[in-house]
Amino acid sequence: MDPLLRLSLTRVTGDKRSVVDDVVVVEEPLEIRMGEKPVSVTMRTPGDDFELAAGFLFTEGILQRPDAIESIRHWGSENVVRIGLRTDVKIDLQKLARNFYATSSCGVCGKASIDAIRIQTKPVVSSMHVSGATLSRLPDVLRRSQSLFESSGAIHAAGLFSADGSLSLLREDIGRHNAVDKVIGARFLAGRTPISDEILMVSGRAGFEVVQKAIIAGIPIIAAVGAPSSLAVELAKEMNVTLIGFVREGKFNVYSGAERIV
Amino acid sequence: MDPLLRLSLTRVTGDKRSVVDDVVVVEEPLEIRMGEKPVSVTMRTPGDDFELAAGFLFTEGILQRPDAIESIRHWGSENVVRIGLRTDVKIDLQKLARNFYATSSCGVCGKASIDAIRIQTKPVVSSMHVSGATLSRLPDVLRRSQSLFESSGAIHAAGLFSADGSLSLLREDIGRHNAVDKVIGARFLAGRTPISDEILMVSGRAGFEVVQKAIIAGIPIIAAVGAPSSLAVELAKEMNVTLIGFVREGKFNVYSGAERIV
Repeated sequence: MDPLLRLSLTRVTGDKRSVVDDVVVVEEPLEIRMGEKPVSVTMRTPGDDFELAAGFLFTEGILQRPDAIESIRHWGSENVVRIGLRTDVKIDLQKLARNFYATSSCGVCGKASIDAIRIQTKPVVSSMHVSGATLSRLPDVLRRSQSLFESSGAIHAAGLFSADGSLSLLREDIGRHNAVDKVIGARFLAGRTPISDEILMVSGRAGFEVVQKAIIAGIPIIAAVGAPSSLAVELAKEMNVTLIGFVREGKFNVYSGAERIV
Repeated sequence: MDPLLRLSLTRVTGDKRSVVDDVVVVEEPLEIRMGEKPVSVTMRTPGDDFELAAGFLFTEGILQRPDAIESIRHWGSENVVRIGLRTDVKIDLQKLARNFYATSSCGVCGKASIDAIRIQTKPVVSSMHVSGATLSRLPDVLRRSQSLFESSGAIHAAGLFSADGSLSLLREDIGRHNAVDKVIGARFLAGRTPISDEILMVSGRAGFEVVQKAIIAGIPIIAAVGAPSSLAVELAKEMNVTLIGFVREGKFNVYSGAERIV
């Protein structure tokens, strides 16, 4: 499926109106199955579906190792990905039902959400550093590298950058979380997690779920063009992750882990 | 709970770095219960929790009428809302499990997602019209009316406007869908649905779920500062809704239902 759809629309400029051709980003449901069992449906932009499915299962704590996967393929439709596990692999699908926000003994709160992640993973260990000048360049590199943004004006990106500011992996999706799952899923399938020596840069905001996904993947530095949330900052601090927001025009805010910025 | 959290951060501007006080938007989980049964957890900005919970259940097709609700209150925590139903009201919670993207006989696809909504509701009937000049003013009014945006730089808004461009209701949330559920939930609880004579303006993009929620609420005109998705356009066309994107600087794109723009 093409990630962009060409269509006709009415463009209104002041008093003028004209019918023009333009494109919009494609949004279609993707059902992720483990064997015969549907475990999730996400609205996504078609493309890199295997990475999205694997990345989702990894960042939600369902899969820990890529060699648990025996097969991964589209299944009867381009909107279904079926992941077959090795017969000796046991997984806990209840985790998806419980999910990270699940009620704990202390009740429903941000603290409980963070505790749930602490059970899944350890604080990030990384000696990575990055210069402020390099960080400031990342949004431009990300934007210029987006193949779908220019034509549609509306698609999120997630990129992995090395400490010298070079872009090593970029994925796009109409959903912020999906773009993150796609880049992390690509590394996961390649057996290259934890991602302890790269920066995750996202085109939008850094909420709890984006930071959670990056932490599960072991990423030490997360940078966002937009703002972080309160819970994202708290989670980043607890898990020893550098969280940077509002990376714009040579300025940025460091909410956690400023010692990694040199 | 306060919707904004004050914190210290490190601001980097070129070679300079300073520690400053700033605010971020609060993100905390909200568990929605029907009676004793937890039905959903969403990450939201605290505030208008009853409207959010009621709006969610309405726009997901679980509740059709406000008088089905006997009580609505926080329950043991500010992060849990419990909705008690009248004893004679029967609801189908399976709908939440199935949800709108559920596999249908034709498989998982955007068409099936639209068909699922068609089962829930009818195409929108409304003789509402709005002028292009009025529409162009809405984003500014929305932004200037946002109480939380200026301080945080990062919160979504959804507003209901009448045909003359006056803002009748505004809600903010870190989640786009939550902001929409809050405005629709307010109208639902007041017994004022369908909302057949107002425009829904959203600060972000108009994806499938935002358009779906508006359609369930009977809203005839949806306008977004950002872009729509392919499936949002298709759904709007099928359900006789006017969908407008990229409302910026006196220009906008009409993807569906241009006859309502005069």
